[in-house]
Amino acid sequence: MQAWPDQSILDLFGIKTPILLAPMAGPGTPQLAIAVCEAGGLGALGCSQLDAKGLIDNVDAIRAGTRRPINLNFFCHDEPAVVAERVQRWRDMLEPYYRERDIALDAAFAAPRRRAFNAEICAAVEACRPEVVSFHFGLPAADLMARVKATGAKVIASATSVTEAVWLAARGCDAIIAMGLEAGGHRGSFLANSPERQAGTIALAPQIVDAVRIPVIAAGGIADGRGIAAAFALGASAVQIGTGYLLCPEAKVSALHRAALLAASDDATMVTNLFTGRPARAIVNRLMREQGPISATAPDFPLAAGALAPLRARAEMAGSDDFTPLWSGQAAKLARALPAEVLTRKLAREALARMAALGVPRGDLG
Amino acid sequence: MQAWPDQSILDLFGIKTPILLAPMAGPGTPQLAIAVCEAGGLGALGCSQLDAKGLIDNVDAIRAGTRRPINLNFFCHDEPAVVAERVQRWRDMLEPYYRERDIALDAAFAAPRRRAFNAEICAAVEACRPEVVSFHFGLPAADLMARVKATGAKVIASATSVTEAVWLAARGCDAIIAMGLEAGGHRGSFLANSPERQAGTIALAPQIVDAVRIPVIAAGGIADGRGIAAAFALGASAVQIGTGYLLCPEAKVSALHRAALLAASDDATMVTNLFTGRPARAIVNRLMREQGPISATAPDFPLAAGALAPLRARAEMAGSDDFTPLWSGQAAKLARALPAEVLTRKLAREALARMAALGVPRGDLG
Repeated sequence: MQAWPDQSILDLFGIKTPILLAPMAGPGTPQLAIAVCEAGGLGALGCSQLDAKGLIDNVDAIRAGTRRPINLNFFCHDEPAVVAERVQRWRDMLEPYYRERDIALDAAFAAPRRRAFNAEICAAVEACRPEVVSFHFGLPAADLMARVKATGAKVIASATSVTEAVWLAARGCDAIIAMGLEAGGHRGSFLANSPERQAGTIALAPQIVDAVRIPVIAAGGIADGRGIAAAFALGASAVQIGTGYLLCPEAKVSALHRAALLAASDDATMVTNLFTGRPARAIVNRLMREQGPISATAPDFPLAAGALAPLRARAEMAGSDDFTPLWSGQAAKLARALPAEVLTRKLAREALARMAALGVPRGDLG
Repeated sequence: MQAWPDQSILDLFGIKTPILLAPMAGPGTPQLAIAVCEAGGLGALGCSQLDAKGLIDNVDAIRAGTRRPINLNFFCHDEPAVVAERVQRWRDMLEPYYRERDIALDAAFAAPRRRAFNAEICAAVEACRPEVVSFHFGLPAADLMARVKATGAKVIASATSVTEAVWLAARGCDAIIAMGLEAGGHRGSFLANSPERQAGTIALAPQIVDAVRIPVIAAGGIADGRGIAAAFALGASAVQIGTGYLLCPEAKVSALHRAALLAASDDATMVTNLFTGRPARAIVNRLMREQGPISATAPDFPLAAGALAPLRARAEMAGSDDFTPLWSGQAAKLARALPAEVLTRKLAREALARMAALGVPRGDLG
């Protein structure tokens, strides 16, 4: 019988398997979280698009399916000022697409669905008492952070550089997610915002391990047992996996997104700010090819999504992913369409077998 | 006594330690190659800036110091057409820097020092008979490739995507270098040239392992035993390390470059085309900040270097690295200033210890 070579995250969170489900607002569902929890990992829910009631309802749904620890994730961006001129320039840029799809140019903007963590959501967290709370784009204001810590929740957050990791550790985080450039979805960066300078997981994880005294969770490009074993080799105490779970039946992934994931090669993705205003990794589609991947015209996060919403909806109805954010990391090819509980157990077995095979006494070689 | 978990590269090259010195034209010296060979790894010489005589002299110097196998590396770019107008636009862009440094605007262009592999160099290879020949930017024409193979040399080449790896394997390579985006110096890409789409090592290496039947050598962001152990976890059979050797006394690294490496954080580098015309990773300096990192004005590889040469020389004399290509990968922080033979043995010991520690039977935990 084999054990994980580092127990610190298992002890910290009270889980059995050092695999964290990445909290993916959208694809994430209570069923996906429950499945990962039941397999011994840490299930998660991306809450950036939920109000307090939606949050409580979702947590109730998870608690009904599992008694294991869970992780609730929140965004910590500054709520953007709506600068009419910038939003108009963005709409102007999109106008040819509106015309092409016969969408009224004065169609109402969708209100931003992504919200920053605030006092009202914090009260919901105090009511739900998740075992782990994770933050993206930094941390909330000190008073809110103190309230979260006072619930007894362990607090973790994403770092895309050593500087960010040190910043987070100094402000009370219990563990750091070292988010390599390979990761899908929004970059967690908050001190600097230049994806071209950000390191891949194999370079980032050990440098963060060397710089902080708390456990490190490796994320980015990890989707099978080999990646998990590699993360432990680098000094991480756990992994966080997102794209690797997107083909699971419990994930809420549209047929268009699923088809793109199934076809994705290693070089299918880029970091783009077009879908929300903030850099995020997605499979390259028409909008990214024609306007990006990075555009100075995109308004502040998350406002860019508003003017895209009618375009995306109309295109998707016609079977086109031209305006859909096809979130994915660089290892989509390694994802498997298995039930999430089966997949989690399989990932753990593969990783343990891989690690056992690495330490070969000389006599054992054929 | 512990063995490496995969022997295929050791058997293929006839070496004892699966660590390849990256062939770095410039910093690489015969002494550096000898030291890595004597420690059991594969020493290498970057030959892109050598003519046939220089090549033979350098190989003689290495053979005088070691009887172990060596790797000679060549570039396989198309020799550029010198388009006067493009070179002039490049010079025009640099003009303010020429004025600032009091350099005559009609200073002669330096001739390109980087040459593509050709029949004359191939004849020198036939004379030198290196055990391994490696190529960057694809492979030479089929007749030259056949001549190299006919010498008995094992041929390896860099791939920055699965597509490139499959292309190289189909054309007779004996092993593939999976070059993750973390790597320093010139990107090896040759089928597509978009660094923003290229994967980090943790995502790239396993996808290449799955796609080809020949051994894979992981490169990019690997500079200590943790990275080596991670590479084996990912399915690689060896690693190639460049930046990790740049602080060794045998490396020809200027004081300016060394100082930049010693100060480099994980996010200190970017991929730039300014120094040669081709994307390459370097520590961000003034030229990169002000004109890049990527500029459409840079002429074709390697012509961009010509007009920069007088600027670089004048600035370096004044103690400035403003125009110096400070080649580095994303793990410079992990490099150590040790003699290369000592470092190679230490890297091997660290990696083996790391791998042994990963497969822990449950009873052994404290």
